Amino acid sequence: MRLLDYHYHPIVIKQIVQFKMQTLSSRLNIDKNAALPVYLQLSNQLMVLIKAGTLQAGYRLPSTRQLAYLLTIHRKTVIRAYDELLAQGWLESKTGNGTFVAHHLPVFKPQTLANKAPNTAQVAGFNINTPAHLYRKTADMQASFHLDDGFPDVRMAPVLDMSRAYRTQLLTGNPYTRLGYGDTSGSAWLRDELAAYLNVTRGLHVTAANILIVRGTVMGLYLACTGLLQAGDTVVTGEPGWTGAQTNFLQAGANLLTIPVDDHGLNVDLLEQLCLKQTVRLVYVTSHHHYPTTVGLRADRRVQLLALAQKYGFIIFEDDYDYDFHYQNKPLMPLASADEAGMVLYCGSFSKTISPAIRVGYLVGPQNVIEHLSRLRRLIDRQGDTLLENAMAELLQNGIIQRHLRKSLRVYRQRRDIFCDLMKTYLGNQVQFKIPDGGLAVWTHFDPQINLTSLAQKALKKGLYFQGENSAATPNATRLGFASSTPDELQLGVEILAKLLQNP
Amino acid sequence: MRLLDYHYHPIVIKQIVQFKMQTLSSRLNIDKNAALPVYLQLSNQLMVLIKAGTLQAGYRLPSTRQLAYLLTIHRKTVIRAYDELLAQGWLESKTGNGTFVAHHLPVFKPQTLANKAPNTAQVAGFNINTPAHLYRKTADMQASFHLDDGFPDVRMAPVLDMSRAYRTQLLTGNPYTRLGYGDTSGSAWLRDELAAYLNVTRGLHVTAANILIVRGTVMGLYLACTGLLQAGDTVVTGEPGWTGAQTNFLQAGANLLTIPVDDHGLNVDLLEQLCLKQTVRLVYVTSHHHYPTTVGLRADRRVQLLALAQKYGFIIFEDDYDYDFHYQNKPLMPLASADEAGMVLYCGSFSKTISPAIRVGYLVGPQNVIEHLSRLRRLIDRQGDTLLENAMAELLQNGIIQRHLRKSLRVYRQRRDIFCDLMKTYLGNQVQFKIPDGGLAVWTHFDPQINLTSLAQKALKKGLYFQGENSAATPNATRLGFASSTPDELQLGVEILAKLLQNP
Repeated sequence: MRLLDYHYHPIVIKQIVQFKMQTLSSRLNIDKNAALPVYLQLSNQLMVLIKAGTLQAGYRLPSTRQLAYLLTIHRKTVIRAYDELLAQGWLESKTGNGTFVAHHLPVFKPQTLANKAPNTAQVAGFNINTPAHLYRKTADMQASFHLDDGFPDVRMAPVLDMSRAYRTQLLTGNPYTRLGYGDTSGSAWLRDELAAYLNVTRGLHVTAANILIVRGTVMGLYLACTGLLQAGDTVVTGEPGWTGAQTNFLQAGANLLTIPVDDHGLNVDLLEQLCLKQTVRLVYVTSHHHYPTTVGLRADRRVQLLALAQKYGFIIFEDDYDYDFHYQNKPLMPLASADEAGMVLYCGSFSKTISPAIRVGYLVGPQNVIEHLSRLRRLIDRQGDTLLENAMAELLQNGIIQRHLRKSLRVYRQRRDIFCDLMKTYLGNQVQFKIPDGGLAVWTHFDPQINLTSLAQKALKKGLYFQGENSAATPNATRLGFASSTPDELQLGVEILAKLLQNP
Repeated sequence: MRLLDYHYHPIVIKQIVQFKMQTLSSRLNIDKNAALPVYLQLSNQLMVLIKAGTLQAGYRLPSTRQLAYLLTIHRKTVIRAYDELLAQGWLESKTGNGTFVAHHLPVFKPQTLANKAPNTAQVAGFNINTPAHLYRKTADMQASFHLDDGFPDVRMAPVLDMSRAYRTQLLTGNPYTRLGYGDTSGSAWLRDELAAYLNVTRGLHVTAANILIVRGTVMGLYLACTGLLQAGDTVVTGEPGWTGAQTNFLQAGANLLTIPVDDHGLNVDLLEQLCLKQTVRLVYVTSHHHYPTTVGLRADRRVQLLALAQKYGFIIFEDDYDYDFHYQNKPLMPLASADEAGMVLYCGSFSKTISPAIRVGYLVGPQNVIEHLSRLRRLIDRQGDTLLENAMAELLQNGIIQRHLRKSLRVYRQRRDIFCDLMKTYLGNQVQFKIPDGGLAVWTHFDPQINLTSLAQKALKKGLYFQGENSAATPNATRLGFASSTPDELQLGVEILAKLLQNP
């Protein structure tokens, strides 16, 4: 009898209703092949129509059955879309009477502050000091071929395992601890796994209490600088050395001194002469393969360096960025393995072992230093990514990372040999290098006649990236990374170089 | 004819071979229900036997068919395990002749440094300064019920969508850019999505160039302190205020002053009186809901604060930690939306909107400041997590985060109302509070007779966590977070409090 309220005949009403529904369905565009699930496409589009006022408060939506028929989709999909909009407050349902656009829409109308222009500022209204040491060149990675600084081949990364482990961390366990605030010093699970891993592979004797999980070597270094150095403290690095570390020491206000690196690493005798003259607070070393020259620190110098640290009271920051990549079967264990006096801070990360995008590293040292630097880290970066850290712990526990490293080692050794052969064949005596014992790059000296910066610019135009200048101290030498390229890519890269050298 | 070389009859040989194989298979324990795939169980166990010398160099392994039969697993699984070990160098195959334990095993025998004891140091051999401001209490989260500081309910986090998006980022696209080194200022995609999102929801007028992706508000604040403050600079915060921010200002060597916060937020008149007396470099505000008291900064004070910043040249650091949670339909837009002179740094994160474990935040400001702080960030934390940042960009692009927020808002509003009713009913006049307009916690004053610290300790023993003291300035008030608990959990939590207050 309700239909008599209208001035139309029941059949006309039915036609009008159908017409309205068809009008609605014509406004909805469902693409079954799109990445976004169909129910979300539908709920999003309905929301837009509600927001725009096309569907007004009190508008009765077609039944789920009708809309499913009109859109040729499954009825359950429509139910799910309606449920979404009910949950979000866009729709309301009256039992037995259908689904309607809500009368009190959850419309978000923020108030602006009176008569103020928008902020489109490019320049601040206050002064800022921008110290010169913060300005650093950034590599252009948009090339077809990369003889990079010594990066791993990310195409070999165990991405499926990583994705599975991350999923497990997101979906299982106690959400309050997994997804809530966590321990600033890092996932306890990962610290346990890392302690075991470092003890076995590097001869350390540490527990979780000696480990601070960081975002990478850069953060480990920054924390050490900020937490352990005072402005004016003397810091010693090798020359040539890593600009990244040097910048960090400058930022901490350190008095930065360098000593030469020869074919056996840092010249430790010269370091002792320095210690006799002045107080040294920290010595930065890349003992396994010196950056950038790739030479290892000889055993006797290691022992001597540790003795000096103890005698003169300086901290050794051991940046062990590529310990996992050694092509002889007997690499020397790191300084940290023989540190009986608590002088060494040891730092490593997954950037080189898996991929630079995996922002997990570790700083290892005496417990009181780790506690101090954890407290400092809390001010800088509340906590790490617990999900990612636990995922990495799972991959270590299951041996996935260890297996990945073993495979990588074989592949990279082959690539090193192929690359060195290619250089000999194609570049002849225009380059000089030693085949490195380990690591992911060859320290290559170019003929003094060659302008390396200009060569790198020309190469980039041909699709080959390499770093034109690695250290101001050695203008005609650079690191050429072989690990991230397949043998074919290495061949094509070297051919580009060879052509440019023939026709400069 | 080859068999004649042996002193056994062919049938005896066959028996010996079978015996050996059964011995091998008895050493292998395959659990088809284990989490680790069967092929990895097999390859791991074979590796252990090879490492232990049980299977020696040159040992011929059973054929894949035989081993599959003996272990009742699929032959393809054995092939996959053998392939693993071949790739890792543990096995070698001779075409048409079988698979053998390799003669040159990839055995890793690192050399120790002579006669040095292992490092088990608990205390460093060098001195460290540990400033008192770094020591902060950590909340004990191991309770059944949490009336926490104002955290979201992580059980509502869109974990399936997050997991899918993360997987997409790991497995698709150009691996060199997705998994390699990235831009220190953050994923360009996320910065674009955030610019659009912030412009729509907060009335900003920014582009990607105004945004630095950080790990959370803590990092945003640290960068601003380190990059923009000199030791001795005056910084002003409200009292009571957030200890986390205050600690960061102290770490930067700032002269920290506080001005009172009343029912309409920071007392801006008192701020002007301060500016007349001395140079102020930075003012820290939580304008939307003041932390910890949850009051909003009134519109006229906002306009006045912006005018003061311009007049006296101070930076406004606007920590907008909970803008998304407002239970009135007309929240005031942030100060940053009306910043015509480039005085405001605006900071937010996904910690409160999705989960504290999602370590992604954003710092928004004038382009030259963002560039400067990006360079500084490079020294601290080379880059963010590109995979996670792109996953968040995808969730913003698909509207997943927006939908999640809309749902959360409805749920949290209900929980706020339920929680406030429960407090009125069960705690009566032992507590005083105003129903907050937004945010995830109620600022609750307890009767002056009640020792809040002692009450919190007793409650924890009964399974309820809340923070006993939120600010030294207001010893008998604390934040009670309602959002992370269901109505049932809220009821049980309040009942624990009520019982303790009845029988102190």
